[in-house]
Amino acid sequence: MNSIQNNWFTEKSALWEGQSFSMEVKEVLFHEKSDFQDVLVMDTKTYGRVLVLDGCIQCTEKDEFSYQEMMTFVPLTCHPNPKSVLIIGGGDGGVAREVVKYPTVEKVVQCEIDAKVVEVSKKFLPFIASGFESPKLTLNIGDGLDFVSKHKNEFDVIITDSSDPIGPAESLFGEKYYKMCQEALKPGGIICSQGENMWYHSKIIRTMLDFCKTMFPKVSYGYTCIPTYPGGQIGFLLCSKNPDTKFEEPLKELSEEDVENMNLRYYNASIHRAAFILPQFAKKELLN
Amino acid sequence: MNSIQNNWFTEKSALWEGQSFSMEVKEVLFHEKSDFQDVLVMDTKTYGRVLVLDGCIQCTEKDEFSYQEMMTFVPLTCHPNPKSVLIIGGGDGGVAREVVKYPTVEKVVQCEIDAKVVEVSKKFLPFIASGFESPKLTLNIGDGLDFVSKHKNEFDVIITDSSDPIGPAESLFGEKYYKMCQEALKPGGIICSQGENMWYHSKIIRTMLDFCKTMFPKVSYGYTCIPTYPGGQIGFLLCSKNPDTKFEEPLKELSEEDVENMNLRYYNASIHRAAFILPQFAKKELLN
Repeated sequence: MNSIQNNWFTEKSALWEGQSFSMEVKEVLFHEKSDFQDVLVMDTKTYGRVLVLDGCIQCTEKDEFSYQEMMTFVPLTCHPNPKSVLIIGGGDGGVAREVVKYPTVEKVVQCEIDAKVVEVSKKFLPFIASGFESPKLTLNIGDGLDFVSKHKNEFDVIITDSSDPIGPAESLFGEKYYKMCQEALKPGGIICSQGENMWYHSKIIRTMLDFCKTMFPKVSYGYTCIPTYPGGQIGFLLCSKNPDTKFEEPLKELSEEDVENMNLRYYNASIHRAAFILPQFAKKELLN
Repeated sequence: MNSIQNNWFTEKSALWEGQSFSMEVKEVLFHEKSDFQDVLVMDTKTYGRVLVLDGCIQCTEKDEFSYQEMMTFVPLTCHPNPKSVLIIGGGDGGVAREVVKYPTVEKVVQCEIDAKVVEVSKKFLPFIASGFESPKLTLNIGDGLDFVSKHKNEFDVIITDSSDPIGPAESLFGEKYYKMCQEALKPGGIICSQGENMWYHSKIIRTMLDFCKTMFPKVSYGYTCIPTYPGGQIGFLLCSKNPDTKFEEPLKELSEEDVENMNLRYYNASIHRAAFILPQFAKKELLN
């Protein structure tokens, strides 16, 4: 990996051809190949500590909260009483950190394929990895699709915090995975998955929305702004087994006081609603 | 300017330290120093044709519509009957292209400091520069602050489509400019200005919001998503002389049919409302 040159890290990917984002590096803290991928942790001039997998930025200290909070509280507040949550992926611990804050959640099970990511996050990204310390959490190391297929009728919410569909997370973007999730969910259960970017990947997103609609009575697509993901935003795909779910309208409205007490920096009930309002081109490409 | 190396253009600026965005270049179409700035037009692999001023991306064929439409239709639909519009800057012609579509608008006056930008846009970016062909438009070449100071009680809406506060547009971010705009506006008039990025420039934005509040009874801050601006979004600062203006709620709601007829690709009435909903951190930093 020659992604760092002259103290600048550059992210390039076949998923975003013809463009790249670069950050000035203060120090490389860790760089090794795990059994699954290239794992890099660096301290940067502007974004603080950064986790990079197979050359793609996963999270930075400056802006990770946008993704973690929206991936967590959008599905949780749309469920009437989420008690058991499954996180697939999320090896940095950021989604777990948010999920365990939610008052009704009693049990969190996480399945991450790469133990090295968890180990490295605990050591170098303690502000993200703090979720791993919760007594509510059980962590499994293994394949996400395989794990989900062995659980039936067990979870209220499943959050798929995956990297992109090139690499170890590829299976988490397929129809089979969603079918397994549908069976692993309890009645009324909800799944929320990383859903790529509407400016670059409308065909992938549309394909996923279309097959999800054959399995779930309610399917929706939202997005959040996050400067260090390509194009400055990332989508999430939501499916519910409950036909009455309205993803754009939280069942449980977090008050300003809740938001303060839970130390939320991005999520609030208004930005939840706004996350489902698409610009005209995306409305036509994704929802027509 | 060695911003292009090995067929990749890289944008770096003191306004976004420690990070840069790069694009693969197919062909450099124009590159010259004008009397005011370095002007570059290139054709790129993924974003089509791109205008760059002093090393900073101003607009790309793929995503420019987000900025142009939101900068135009947010203020226009918040005014009860906008007839005369002043555009300061906007030398690529994109804002003019949108403003002239609006049915009530009778007269558009534009003041751009750099004739070279207009000339180059007409030649190489005809899809953006088409606004210059409208019989409603009068184009002046000159300094924006100077131009505004010579007009009193004349415009319903002023749109400041400027580059960033380093370079020829610096004066357009100052208190004096807003004072002059206030006087150039008719009663009930509205100003909408490029308002930087909430993730990087909250202090600049807060300073501007604060001095605008001493001059206008209604001041607000919204934003739009656009992949090729740093961090993937850009804000806009709105001020109204009418205390009853509600920027987050358009007075004139464009129907789906209007949006189709005007060939809008980003703006619709829902995304207008959503543009004013800020994530928690920005709400605290900008509005508290």
